Amino acid sequence: MINRTNPIPMYLQVKNELEKMIKSGELKPGDRIYSESELCEKYNVSRITAKKSLDELVQDGCVYRIQGRGSFVQGPKIDHKLSNFYSFTEEVKARGMIAQSIILNTEIVVPDQEVIENLNLESNEKVYFIRRLRMANDAIIALDNSYIPCSICEHLTKEDLTNHSLYEMLNMQGVVPDKAVESFLAVGLNEEEANLLGEKVGTASLKVCRKTYCKNRLIEYNYRFYKGNQYCYTVELNVK
Amino acid sequence: MINRTNPIPMYLQVKNELEKMIKSGELKPGDRIYSESELCEKYNVSRITAKKSLDELVQDGCVYRIQGRGSFVQGPKIDHKLSNFYSFTEEVKARGMIAQSIILNTEIVVPDQEVIENLNLESNEKVYFIRRLRMANDAIIALDNSYIPCSICEHLTKEDLTNHSLYEMLNMQGVVPDKAVESFLAVGLNEEEANLLGEKVGTASLKVCRKTYCKNRLIEYNYRFYKGNQYCYTVELNVK
Repeated sequence: MINRTNPIPMYLQVKNELEKMIKSGELKPGDRIYSESELCEKYNVSRITAKKSLDELVQDGCVYRIQGRGSFVQGPKIDHKLSNFYSFTEEVKARGMIAQSIILNTEIVVPDQEVIENLNLESNEKVYFIRRLRMANDAIIALDNSYIPCSICEHLTKEDLTNHSLYEMLNMQGVVPDKAVESFLAVGLNEEEANLLGEKVGTASLKVCRKTYCKNRLIEYNYRFYKGNQYCYTVELNVK
Repeated sequence: MINRTNPIPMYLQVKNELEKMIKSGELKPGDRIYSESELCEKYNVSRITAKKSLDELVQDGCVYRIQGRGSFVQGPKIDHKLSNFYSFTEEVKARGMIAQSIILNTEIVVPDQEVIENLNLESNEKVYFIRRLRMANDAIIALDNSYIPCSICEHLTKEDLTNHSLYEMLNMQGVVPDKAVESFLAVGLNEEEANLLGEKVGTASLKVCRKTYCKNRLIEYNYRFYKGNQYCYTVELNVK
């Protein structure tokens, strides 16, 4: 309960109350959470206090907002134990969730300098550019950009990717990814990325850059922006 | 050169020009880069264009701003290849840089729920709380929070940590860290974190949470916020 003589700030007490309801299951993933005015009334706190409680829950990734509809309880965070080569699709399926993609782009493009450098391309080589929103159980998880040299793969259309994962398509053409080098960093989303992910411009996002290999040949350059802090990578490190 | 008939947006052309100067070494780490008004004059572009070029360079981590002083070329990004157990101090030294810390807190505290859960503590156990700004060659790299059960370690003072790294201090007391489990996520910095790191509130930061073990006994819970995108973790993933 909220206690005005408690040295813990009011917004933190309200936040703690809401967290308890989420942990106990009283509020379930997808449930609408109290609005600012409902919180003001329920706990007899100011609008500023109510707003700060909700803001912190959003920042912690426990709650998400939908413009004009309210704030909702977030589903469980995906904790991905990094050890071996993986595909996003397989990782989501392994958690008993449905992996889906919204395909935004499938086209052959002249690569920019970043892609040329990351794929060690000749300057006149073209690449497939595939951009997808990756989803788990209907929730958007990441914005995913893949670049694949046209020399690697004969056939790659939107239809192919609607029916198969990208790596399945490569497999069918005899290109079996067997190694990836991934880099992890934090970035603020730019306008386009934020719009596609349904976030505000500048929202912190985990950016994972991947170079994928088949028998030591570079076959893909990929970078993904994870939405909010709903996805977290974990790694175990031992002494040599 | 800037070309007004080129379909590439002007701000991107200006950004590319500046990137070229940084890559070629014409502009070196620590050098002041052109101000917005200098860019307007040099390239005959609008203030909005100049600002957008600089904003993107800041976002990419190539340039940093100091309030009232201008924009400066960032030093090289630290790319840390994750494989075995590591200490921040050793990683920085291995790159030929000087590892230093500004010790903000060394105190014995009653842990909060997050720390209790992460260290599997009895509710009445106290912990050392150590907060440090981690630096490489005088540049702030991360804000680092460590919690160590008092039962692990007899002696841990600010003076100890001024002369030794935390793990050196533990080593001297027979506690040799041999395993860590780390999680990587992106967060927006809150006001306190941002102030300590010299960033704006909400700036994207890579948060690394670590549980450290000695012979399978939990000896530390740590979380670090890396400044900007100056630090990047890389991992190699092979098929099983």
